Amino acid sequence: MRRAIALSLRNARGTGGGPFGAVVVHKGRVIGSGSNRVTTGCDPTAHAEIVAIRAACRRLRSFSLDGATIYSSCEPCPMCLAAILWARIDRLVFANTRADAARIGFDDAWFYRQVALPPGRRDLPTRRLLRGEAQQAFKAWAANPRKVAY
Amino acid sequence: MRRAIALSLRNARGTGGGPFGAVVVHKGRVIGSGSNRVTTGCDPTAHAEIVAIRAACRRLRSFSLDGATIYSSCEPCPMCLAAILWARIDRLVFANTRADAARIGFDDAWFYRQVALPPGRRDLPTRRLLRGEAQQAFKAWAANPRKVAY
Repeated sequence: MRRAIALSLRNARGTGGGPFGAVVVHKGRVIGSGSNRVTTGCDPTAHAEIVAIRAACRRLRSFSLDGATIYSSCEPCPMCLAAILWARIDRLVFANTRADAARIGFDDAWFYRQVALPPGRRDLPTRRLLRGEAQQAFKAWAANPRKVAY
Repeated sequence: MRRAIALSLRNARGTGGGPFGAVVVHKGRVIGSGSNRVTTGCDPTAHAEIVAIRAACRRLRSFSLDGATIYSSCEPCPMCLAAILWARIDRLVFANTRADAARIGFDDAWFYRQVALPPGRRDLPTRRLLRGEAQQAFKAWAANPRKVAY
């Protein structure tokens, strides 16, 4: 956790991006780490946890981080939490909270409330279209013997 | 939307990844598109929407997609929905639903339920550690005159 906090401090004091850092540990070794690169990388998905997960997956050459622990300097936002779940990470440890992040101007807590709403009740205008046509892909996937599940 | 569905079908019939496609449109032009590359790219964050958002941001050289619409062949999972919010995309249009995805074996609906729970009540073991030390980064960020908000 101290390594994740050090990454967050370096960003907070410079011009590197938001004040967040994360480290992925697997079998007692650090296999990936990252700091926020949203503004410097022109990538709104480049949160510290996402950067660390992608680095760890490259290292293991795997889309699964089963058995790993992620240390994040702040409670993950819904994007990063779901990424942790998709990566099949075993355990999450965090330091600052979503309320702490809200106090310095970040939207994590608000996004948690939005994500919990049904699509039609969010601030984001949302509609459904062409479900019948899109079902073809799901049927083709279900019938595809070469598919790789994840 | 038909372009997003075509991307999802190509994956569903081949070995390219999950049966999902997404397209970002800005000022009447397609500025980014993507299909799922989780298994082929060894990247659990490489959902179609994330791939499309990253491509669109590279195209605009911006971390904001303010004014854009995203078309996704399936309702975005919580990771992708929060990425859409962080990217400041204006509108979401989707075809298949999270329930459709659940029927062919994807965890989106379950992850929506997990994300809505307080950290201590999720299936993912979670704990807090060293918040006092991590607060230093948030204080440094708040005091940093060179920071770029997002």
